[in-house]
Amino acid sequence: MSLKSDVLQIAQSAREASLKLANLNTNIKNKALLTMAEELLKNADKIKKANKKDVETADGKGLSKAMIDRLTVSDKVVKNMSDGIREVAALPDPVGEISKMWKRPNGLLVGKMRIPLGVIGIIYEARPNVTADAAALCLKSGNAVILRGGSEAINSNLAIAKVLQDACKKEGIPDTAIQVVPTTDREAVLEMLKLEEYIDLIIPRGGEGLIRFVVENSKIPVIKHYKGVCHIFVDESADVDMAEKICFNAKVQRPGVCNAMETLLVHKKIGKRFLPKMGKKYQKADVELRGCAETRKILSYAKPATEDDWSAEYLDLILAVKIVKDMDEAIAHIAKYGSLHTESIITKDYHNSQRFLREVNSSTVLVNASTRFSDGFQLGLGAEIGISTTKIHAFGPMGLEELTTQKFIIYGDGQVRE
Amino acid sequence: MSLKSDVLQIAQSAREASLKLANLNTNIKNKALLTMAEELLKNADKIKKANKKDVETADGKGLSKAMIDRLTVSDKVVKNMSDGIREVAALPDPVGEISKMWKRPNGLLVGKMRIPLGVIGIIYEARPNVTADAAALCLKSGNAVILRGGSEAINSNLAIAKVLQDACKKEGIPDTAIQVVPTTDREAVLEMLKLEEYIDLIIPRGGEGLIRFVVENSKIPVIKHYKGVCHIFVDESADVDMAEKICFNAKVQRPGVCNAMETLLVHKKIGKRFLPKMGKKYQKADVELRGCAETRKILSYAKPATEDDWSAEYLDLILAVKIVKDMDEAIAHIAKYGSLHTESIITKDYHNSQRFLREVNSSTVLVNASTRFSDGFQLGLGAEIGISTTKIHAFGPMGLEELTTQKFIIYGDGQVRE
Repeated sequence: MSLKSDVLQIAQSAREASLKLANLNTNIKNKALLTMAEELLKNADKIKKANKKDVETADGKGLSKAMIDRLTVSDKVVKNMSDGIREVAALPDPVGEISKMWKRPNGLLVGKMRIPLGVIGIIYEARPNVTADAAALCLKSGNAVILRGGSEAINSNLAIAKVLQDACKKEGIPDTAIQVVPTTDREAVLEMLKLEEYIDLIIPRGGEGLIRFVVENSKIPVIKHYKGVCHIFVDESADVDMAEKICFNAKVQRPGVCNAMETLLVHKKIGKRFLPKMGKKYQKADVELRGCAETRKILSYAKPATEDDWSAEYLDLILAVKIVKDMDEAIAHIAKYGSLHTESIITKDYHNSQRFLREVNSSTVLVNASTRFSDGFQLGLGAEIGISTTKIHAFGPMGLEELTTQKFIIYGDGQVRE
Repeated sequence: MSLKSDVLQIAQSAREASLKLANLNTNIKNKALLTMAEELLKNADKIKKANKKDVETADGKGLSKAMIDRLTVSDKVVKNMSDGIREVAALPDPVGEISKMWKRPNGLLVGKMRIPLGVIGIIYEARPNVTADAAALCLKSGNAVILRGGSEAINSNLAIAKVLQDACKKEGIPDTAIQVVPTTDREAVLEMLKLEEYIDLIIPRGGEGLIRFVVENSKIPVIKHYKGVCHIFVDESADVDMAEKICFNAKVQRPGVCNAMETLLVHKKIGKRFLPKMGKKYQKADVELRGCAETRKILSYAKPATEDDWSAEYLDLILAVKIVKDMDEAIAHIAKYGSLHTESIITKDYHNSQRFLREVNSSTVLVNASTRFSDGFQLGLGAEIGISTTKIHAFGPMGLEELTTQKFIIYGDGQVRE
């Protein structure tokens, strides 16, 4: 079978499955999820065996230790996948919810009912646990899913998907609800991205290169974020101890993720009180500082920041630091260099806190808290399928609800239009 | 200046204006809208003069009478545009609304705040009134708008936009909030569709050809509907009088619009009671019927329907009629041939009404009412910028709320992530 007809057939059978999934009772979906969680544990050895092949290939190709770490499926990773699916089973089902209903002057009762999107394509890179996470979230929200992971993880992904598919069948759900594209070259992705008739949404997860490739080639709507250049603005009135604690946490607690702080903006009136002690804490934690000229007058050991630093997503223990003359400059800097991801203000001033929340139009805006909270679990969505920095459909961390849409439902008793 | 830099400059200045628009008070926006409404009336002669040029050119090119009718701006059309803007001013402002707020175990208060999308591109065909309607809806929802109308209406569109821009300036709003692309060849559209950095959403309005062109070439998210193949299913238990009244209204009241019925599905057990009288009513109204074999046993004068008829959007006094053996067949027919636009069931049966609402995943699903109600004004949205049959972002008629998105806002008091 050709690659093209292969991908087409997957998409068509996913569309067919989606019509059934849309009308499944919550109980049935939850039962299938619990079976999946159980079967993952039972089949841990099979999954690890398949994963070993991937790891050996990666080793042979000389992939970095960090890459191999992310690729490796241990007993703990299997346990985490299983637990994650149990958590999804415990979440409320968004499908069928009617959020509001209103009556029109002619007596029509109009409401909005939540329904699944249909078929969702996930295009991702090395981490095999995405296979289980994404499949569970899509099933719970009544969507069929087409998973296209990276070539490095293909054996692991197929093995995990097989377990999930078998669990579906066991519970009377078509196994085409969860499918993996078995060919891993980019041609398969290109084929997928053309099938707007069968696939409703594409979510790419991975590096900026992969995401740009998907956006440029897709006829299907794409929800994504390219990168997270997150800012904290330490306002003139900030509690210095609180600012230190939050700025340390936002940079150091887990520097390799998209909601870590990359640029620190400091009001000039607090610079001398705040920066010296903060700088020492960062030095102790091996954070490299790159400062503007004003910053370097206070922190002589900071390297000079270049124009590129203001839009850099380091994902590392590096921080750009800029002193601004006021909040206007801070907001303008974020608008110019930011990525619409996550920004926080540290302040004691009521008016400044409200203005920052109102005027900074990033997907998550915080007052007196770490940027690291911009995460589906942390915000109480229960789970996260990804983060969107595109304002269309979803903005910010996306949970189950963002995998659905709403249709209008109307109860009449004979109304016609005059 | 080259076409490319021309379009780029429009988009960049629109982006800049959007940052200001996002933070305007409702009062200021409403005042500007009322000024626009007034100025349109005052400048009616200028607008009609510009429109006359367009109409003469169209006449010279031999455009159809219907096209010229849609193009012509009379005093009444100006009055309607002005009234429409006044109505938009009277609608509630969606921007800034916080729909819910919840508290996390660590004390963080998390909410969702409604914000504008940013810059919206509207690509449309002959009707100059879209210029005023779209500009008003975008301004009220805090968005900058780039209008790219058809070449036939370019002088009218520029004249209308000029009046609106002057009104903006008068009220201290940048006139780049509302811009018309002055070049009307398709190259300008292609340039626009590349500018994902500056334009957040494209809404194409017009024929299927235009819309497909936009979807295939856009890097920017597009919300659209290709066509409306709307169904009514007359169930076995339907009240025959009600079914007649509704089916007549849905086909005949305004056949040229997307929410008119195009296919009538009739339960076989009611066919003989319902179709003969219904057929006569249609005949009197000059509706051409195209039936399946079973239909033609009852209505011998119906033409035979071909496979193409089941997916046809006639936009005319033509109706495809099919007898189905049960509701399963009706739902399957809609899933196969429908356009996810609008479908209605006529029934007395409680269970069937609920099942139809649940299982038909079109953007608007009705019980015992005409498909003609699938319209922003009729459903109580107050206004309509378009209809979406894509499930992403918005599904069904779109009002002001659909021109916005929600960001997460978070109130903390020093929380860091453990």
